[in-house]
Amino acid sequence: MTETAPRLRVAMVGYGFMGAAHSQGWRVAPRFFDLPAAPEMAVLVGRDATRVAEAAQKWGWAETSTDWREVLTRDDIDVIDIVTPGDSHAEIAIAALEAGKHVLCEKPLANTVAEAKAMADAATAAAERGVYAMVGFTYRRVPAATFARDLVAAGRIGEIRQVRAAYLQDWLIDPESPLTWRLKKDLAGSGSLGDIGAHAIDLAQYITGQKLTTVSGILETIVSERPLLESSQGLSGTASTERGAVTVDDLALFTGRFEGGFLGSFEATRFSTGRKNALRIEISGSAGAISFDLENLNSLQYYDATAPSTEQGFTTILVTEPEHPYISAWWPAGHMLGYEHGFSHQAKDFVEAIASGTQPRPSFADGLQVQEVLDAVETSSENGSAWTTV
Amino acid sequence: MTETAPRLRVAMVGYGFMGAAHSQGWRVAPRFFDLPAAPEMAVLVGRDATRVAEAAQKWGWAETSTDWREVLTRDDIDVIDIVTPGDSHAEIAIAALEAGKHVLCEKPLANTVAEAKAMADAATAAAERGVYAMVGFTYRRVPAATFARDLVAAGRIGEIRQVRAAYLQDWLIDPESPLTWRLKKDLAGSGSLGDIGAHAIDLAQYITGQKLTTVSGILETIVSERPLLESSQGLSGTASTERGAVTVDDLALFTGRFEGGFLGSFEATRFSTGRKNALRIEISGSAGAISFDLENLNSLQYYDATAPSTEQGFTTILVTEPEHPYISAWWPAGHMLGYEHGFSHQAKDFVEAIASGTQPRPSFADGLQVQEVLDAVETSSENGSAWTTV
Amino acid sequence: MTETAPRLRVAMVGYGFMGAAHSQGWRVAPRFFDLPAAPEMAVLVGRDATRVAEAAQKWGWAETSTDWREVLTRDDIDVIDIVTPGDSHAEIAIAALEAGKHVLCEKPLANTVAEAKAMADAATAAAERGVYAMVGFTYRRVPAATFARDLVAAGRIGEIRQVRAAYLQDWLIDPESPLTWRLKKDLAGSGSLGDIGAHAIDLAQYITGQKLTTVSGILETIVSERPLLESSQGLSGTASTERGAVTVDDLALFTGRFEGGFLGSFEATRFSTGRKNALRIEISGSAGAISFDLENLNSLQYYDATAPSTEQGFTTILVTEPEHPYISAWWPAGHMLGYEHGFSHQAKDFVEAIASGTQPRPSFADGLQVQEVLDAVETSSENGSAWTTV
Amino acid sequence: MTETAPRLRVAMVGYGFMGAAHSQGWRVAPRFFDLPAAPEMAVLVGRDATRVAEAAQKWGWAETSTDWREVLTRDDIDVIDIVTPGDSHAEIAIAALEAGKHVLCEKPLANTVAEAKAMADAATAAAERGVYAMVGFTYRRVPAATFARDLVAAGRIGEIRQVRAAYLQDWLIDPESPLTWRLKKDLAGSGSLGDIGAHAIDLAQYITGQKLTTVSGILETIVSERPLLESSQGLSGTASTERGAVTVDDLALFTGRFEGGFLGSFEATRFSTGRKNALRIEISGSAGAISFDLENLNSLQYYDATAPSTEQGFTTILVTEPEHPYISAWWPAGHMLGYEHGFSHQAKDFVEAIASGTQPRPSFADGLQVQEVLDAVETSSENGSAWTTV
Repeated sequence: MTETAPRLRVAMVGYGFMGAAHSQGWRVAPRFFDLPAAPEMAVLVGRDATRVAEAAQKWGWAETSTDWREVLTRDDIDVIDIVTPGDSHAEIAIAALEAGKHVLCEKPLANTVAEAKAMADAATAAAERGVYAMVGFTYRRVPAATFARDLVAAGRIGEIRQVRAAYLQDWLIDPESPLTWRLKKDLAGSGSLGDIGAHAIDLAQYITGQKLTTVSGILETIVSERPLLESSQGLSGTASTERGAVTVDDLALFTGRFEGGFLGSFEATRFSTGRKNALRIEISGSAGAISFDLENLNSLQYYDATAPSTEQGFTTILVTEPEHPYISAWWPAGHMLGYEHGFSHQAKDFVEAIASGTQPRPSFADGLQVQEVLDAVETSSENGSAWTTV
Repeated sequence: MTETAPRLRVAMVGYGFMGAAHSQGWRVAPRFFDLPAAPEMAVLVGRDATRVAEAAQKWGWAETSTDWREVLTRDDIDVIDIVTPGDSHAEIAIAALEAGKHVLCEKPLANTVAEAKAMADAATAAAERGVYAMVGFTYRRVPAATFARDLVAAGRIGEIRQVRAAYLQDWLIDPESPLTWRLKKDLAGSGSLGDIGAHAIDLAQYITGQKLTTVSGILETIVSERPLLESSQGLSGTASTERGAVTVDDLALFTGRFEGGFLGSFEATRFSTGRKNALRIEISGSAGAISFDLENLNSLQYYDATAPSTEQGFTTILVTEPEHPYISAWWPAGHMLGYEHGFSHQAKDFVEAIASGTQPRPSFADGLQVQEVLDAVETSSENGSAWTTV
Repeated sequence: MTETAPRLRVAMVGYGFMGAAHSQGWRVAPRFFDLPAAPEMAVLVGRDATRVAEAAQKWGWAETSTDWREVLTRDDIDVIDIVTPGDSHAEIAIAALEAGKHVLCEKPLANTVAEAKAMADAATAAAERGVYAMVGFTYRRVPAATFARDLVAAGRIGEIRQVRAAYLQDWLIDPESPLTWRLKKDLAGSGSLGDIGAHAIDLAQYITGQKLTTVSGILETIVSERPLLESSQGLSGTASTERGAVTVDDLALFTGRFEGGFLGSFEATRFSTGRKNALRIEISGSAGAISFDLENLNSLQYYDATAPSTEQGFTTILVTEPEHPYISAWWPAGHMLGYEHGFSHQAKDFVEAIASGTQPRPSFADGLQVQEVLDAVETSSENGSAWTTV
Repeated sequence: MTETAPRLRVAMVGYGFMGAAHSQGWRVAPRFFDLPAAPEMAVLVGRDATRVAEAAQKWGWAETSTDWREVLTRDDIDVIDIVTPGDSHAEIAIAALEAGKHVLCEKPLANTVAEAKAMADAATAAAERGVYAMVGFTYRRVPAATFARDLVAAGRIGEIRQVRAAYLQDWLIDPESPLTWRLKKDLAGSGSLGDIGAHAIDLAQYITGQKLTTVSGILETIVSERPLLESSQGLSGTASTERGAVTVDDLALFTGRFEGGFLGSFEATRFSTGRKNALRIEISGSAGAISFDLENLNSLQYYDATAPSTEQGFTTILVTEPEHPYISAWWPAGHMLGYEHGFSHQAKDFVEAIASGTQPRPSFADGLQVQEVLDAVETSSENGSAWTTV
C-alpha cells in the first residue's frame, strides 16, 4: 500500500464473532497486500454504547456510534460492513446502498427470499451508480478452495460427473445444551441449513461454476426439546428446568441437480460427532477429481485421471506456493494460513473491485440465489422431498 | 482343526471372481481357525466342462460337474456354495435347501424381491430341519467393521444420531468403456445400487443393529450410451462403433430412516473418480462416533465424546490386536489383513453355525430385507423421490 | 486490553521475513489477548533509509530510524525487538539491555557460542535490574506444541523412552539454485543445522523438559558447488556461469542423549524432497506417546497406552478447543490458526512476563544452551561423529 | 498352474510364526499365480514329534519328520525351507545345498557374519550346479515396495539425495514384560537391530539399488533388567519375582553412507509407543521422492518434483492396479492385500527362478552383506559411534 493510495473509510455495524473476524480482515489486509485504496477502521456501530465502545477499543476502531442511520449520512464514510444478525441485513444494506455507500454484508444475505430479493435489486440499481455490494461467503477465499475452482475452470478434472458437499459440526450433540436463539426459527430463520449448508451450496456452485436448478431434501430436528435458558437474552447461559421446542433443523440432507445436468449430494449437520468445522467438497470429473476439507484448509486433494494408471492417486497439494491464489503476499512455502486469512482476502478483493469500478463477487444476486436454494430445500422437505425448482 | 473333526463337503456352483474369493475362504479358514468341522473343497460346478475343469485345477477343487441338480442328489455333499449371477440364485438355493444341503449364497440374494422372498421362505422351512442358509455380505466380517458393531452395541457411541454410508468406485468414468452385461438391466438387475449400494445398506444396518424403514432417493444413469461390444458374450472386449443404451444406474443417492428414528444418507457410485473401493460408513452418536473406510480396512476411527474436551479426537485404532474380532487366529499385532480374509471369516462363521445347529447370519431373511430396501429406493426414484416404505 | 493499560513502546531492528512476522505479532496480539500493557509499534530501524521507510509504511510502524544506537538512548522506547541476521545480535542485544531496554531477539541467539554467552551474561545482569530478554523460538507457542508439553509434564506419556525430531525442507533440491549468502559459512554461520535444526532441538527440549547432554552426528553438504549470483548483494537473483563452493551443511543428522538418559534422533535438512516445512517431533513414553508435525499445526497426535488394548491408537486431537493453550482468545472450535499466530502468542507472553516482572522463556540462557548443542554437533561431525559433551 | 507343471516338493524345517507364514505362501501361491512348477507341502520337520504333527495337521503338510538330516537324503524332496531360529540356519542350509536341495532361508541369514559367509560360499558353489538359495526378506515383495524400486530404477525421483528408514514397534514398552529368549544375546544374536533393523537395511538397499559402505551408530538397551520367566523354556509365560539382564538392544540408531555417496538415517526400535509394525522408508531425490509405511502397505506416496509447482504434492498411489507388481494375479483394483501375500510372492519368485535356472534374489550373498552391515553397526556402537566400514 503506497502512501498516496486513496482512503476507504469503513463503518462496521455489529460486533459479534463475525465482527472480530471482519475487523481482523480490515486490519491485516493492507499490511500484506498492495491495495489500490487504504481501508480505515473508522466507526463501529452498535445499539449498546458501552459494549460497542469496549469492542471498538479492543479491535481498534477509531470511533463508535449507536445509530447506523446517522452514520449513513456522513460524507466521510465510504463502506458499510454489516455483521448483524440476518433479520436486519435488508434494512441496513438497502439504506446504505441508497446513501451511496459500498456494502459488504455477512451471509446469509437475509432471512427470507423476499428480503434478499429487495437487497439484490437495490444492489443492481446501486451498481449503475458505481456503488457496489458484496456478500461474505468467505470460504471461497481459502486459497485451496480458490485453487480448486481454478483447476476445474481449466478443465483439469474434465466434465463434471457428480458433487459431494457437506458441512459437519457437532456442537449440539449434548441434548442438555440449552435452547438459545439460534434454535428458534423466528429469530434465526433457519438451523443447520442456512447457517452452514449455505456455505456448502455457495462453495459447490463457485467451484463448479454452475448453479443448482432443482432440489429434493429433508430437514430434521434431532433433539426436539431443550432446556430453556434462565435468561432468554444471552447466547448461552445456565439451563432452566423447563424445556422448550427447537424450531429449526439440526440436520439437512438434500440432493440437487446443477445446470450442467449432474447431481450433487449435500449435508449440513450440527450432530456429526467429532467433526468440528468440516466443510468438505469433492467433485468428480471425467478427467480427475478435487477434494477439499476445511479442517485441512491449507491443502487440496487432486486426482489426475490422465496420469499413467500405475501413478494415479490423490495428490495432497500444499496450497502454500507463491503461485497459488493469495499466497505470494504471505509467507514462504509450507507456512500455513488460518481461518481468518479469508477475511483479509475478502477485504482485498472488495477494495480492488471498488477501486477498479467492477462488481465484486459474490454479489447480492449470488447471495439471493443461495437463499432461493435454501428456500427450495425447505419447500421440498415440507412436501415429502418432492423435487422443487430453485 | 483337530483330526477328529467331522468333514463338511462343499460343492461350489459358479467360478467367476467370487469363485476365487470363496475358494480362498474354504482353503485358508481351516488352516488358521480351529473349526468344529473340516470343510473340503469337493466339487466345482459349471456349465462349460473345460472351463470348470481349468478353474478346479487352479483353485484346488477335487472334482467337477456340469450339472448342479445332479450334485444335489449326492449324499456326500453337505454344503452348496452359490457364486453364480443373481438370476440363478433362487432356483439353485431353493432346490439345495430342499435337498437338505446347507447353502451359502453370494449377495445380492436375488434379482427380485419375489425370488428373494421365496428363498427366505425356503430357508425358514429348512432351518426347522436343521438345514441352514446364509447370504454373503462379507464386509461384515472385516475385523474393523465387526469391531465397530461391537462398540456400538456396547453403547460406546451412545444414542445414534445419524448415519453416513457410501460405496464409491470409479471404473465407469471413461465414457468409451463398453456396454457389458453389467450395464443392462435385464441381465444385471440393477447397477450401482444393487451391486455395491447393497453392501452399504447391509453394513449400516449391521453396525447400528437397526433396519431401514422408509427411503427417499434417486437413481441416475450418468453416461446413457456406450459402445456395443464386438462380441456380446464377454464381460469385456473391444468396442464396436455402434452404441447402445445403459439401462442401469451409475449413481444412487438416497436418504433412509432407521427403526430408531434417525436418518442415514447413502450413496453408491461408479463415477467417484479416484475412489477404487471406498465403502465408507460413519455413525454419529450422543457419546461418540465410529468411522470406517474399506480402503483402510485394518483400521477403525473411533471418537469418544466422553473423554476430557482437550483430549477428544478420532483415534485410529489398528484393528490387529489379538483381542479384536477374528485376529487371534492370524498374525501378531500390526500385521495387516487383506480383502480376502473376510471370506475365511465367513467360512469359519458358517461352519461354526452349522456345527452348533444355530442360524448363521446374515440369514436369507436378512438378504431379503436388503432386497426390499433396494426395491423401495427404485420405487422412490420412479416417484420423484417420494418417501417409500421398505 | 483496557484503555488504562500502560504503553510498551517497541523499536524493531531489521525488516526481513522475520520483520513481517514480528510486526504481525505486535499488531494482532493486543486485539485478541487482554494484555497488561499495550505494545505500540513505535520505531522501525534499518540502515537503508528508503527501504526502512517503505517497510514501516507497509507494516504500520509510526517512525523510522537508521541508527539503532540512537534509538537506544530514547526514553520513550521500552522494548528492542531484534530481527537482523545473527552476526549482529550480540552487539545490539547487549547494548540494548545495558540501556535498560527489554529485548526480544530472533533465533539463533548468535552465530557463535562466545557471542551467545556474552548475551546470556548480559541478560542475567539485566534481569537483576528488572530488564528482561527472550529469544524467539516461536514454535513452542504453536498451541499443539504447547499442549504436547502440557501432556508430557502431566505424566500422560509416562517415562520418556525415546525422541525422534526432524525439520524437513526441500528448497535446495535444485542444484542450479544459486549460491546465496545463506550458503556461505562466514555470513550465515551454519546451514540446515543452525537454521532449522535449532528449532528441532529447542522443541524437543521444551516438550520433554530436559536438556541434551551429549551428541554424535554428521553435517553433510549435498551439493557442494552452485552458480554464483550475478549480484552478490541480494538474497536471490539470476545465476552466473561461474560456480562457487557451498560452505554450510545441507543436511545434519545426529543422535543426542538427554539428561534423563534416553536417546533422541535428530535431522535437519533442506533436501527432503516434497517436505516444505515439516518440523516433526515424536516422543515415546512408557504410558503413551505424542506426535506433532508443523505441516498440520492445528492438531496433535496422542497415544494413550493405558487405554483398553482394543481401543488404543493415535488420537488426532484438533487443538482448537477453548481449553487448549492460547485458543480461547481466538475463534470457535475447529477454526484453524496459522503460522503467524505463534508471533502473537510470543508477543503476549513477552508482554505478560515484563508486566509481571518475571523472566520470559526461552531466556538467553536457553538460547545459549541450544547454541552449545549446535556447537557440539559440529565438533562431533569434525571428529568422526565422536560423542561430544554439550 | 497347468496340470503338466513339474512338481517341486518342499520340506520345511521349523514351525513357529514364520512357519505359518511360509506355509500360507506355499499353499496359496499356486492358486493365484501360473507357476512353472507345482510346489507341494511335503514334509514338516521339527524336533518335537507331537508338536510337529499338530502343526502339520493344522497347516496341511503331508508328512512330518523329526530329523532334518534324514530328510536331506530323500530323493523326492526338492526344496528345503528353513524357518528355525538363526543359530541353526548355517548348518541346515549348507547341508541342504550340498545335498542338492534348493534352499529358502528366513532372515536373518545367520547370527554371525562367519556363519553367513559360509552359507554364502556354499550358495555360490551350489549355484554352479544349478542349485539355488534365497534369503527371505519378504518385504521387498510387498507390491508398493517393489513398485517403489521400479520408480527409483526408472529415474522417477532423479538422483538420490538422502534416505530415511525406520522400523518401529512397541511390544517392549512395559518394563514388566518378561525376559524371553529374544532378549538374550546368546540365543537371539541381536535385538531390534537384527530382528527388524535388518529389514530396514535390506529394503533401503533394494529400493535404492545401492549398498551401504560405512556406518556410525549406537545400540541402546532401554530397560536393562526384566522379570525372569518362571519357565525359562517358553517364548512367554508368567514372570517370576527375580530379574535378569537384558543383553540385546531395544533401540538401534545409525547413519550410513551408500555407494552413491548419499547418507541414510536408520532406526530400529521396540519402544516406539503406538507403532505396531511401522517399517517406513522415504527416499528423496533431485526429481522426486517416494515414501512407504508398512502400516499402510497397499499404498505408496510418490512426489513428482517435475510437475508444475502449483500441482506438486505427495500422491497416494493405491498399489492395487493390475499393472502394478504381482497384482494382476489377485483381485480387482482397490481390493487390499495383507501381510501374508508377500510370502506367496516369495514362493512365486523362488519357484520361477528355480524353474528358469536363474539366481533368485535376495541371494545368500545379499543376506551376508546385510549381516555385515549389522556387524559394522555393532562395532561402531562399541567404538563410540566411530564410522566403520561394512
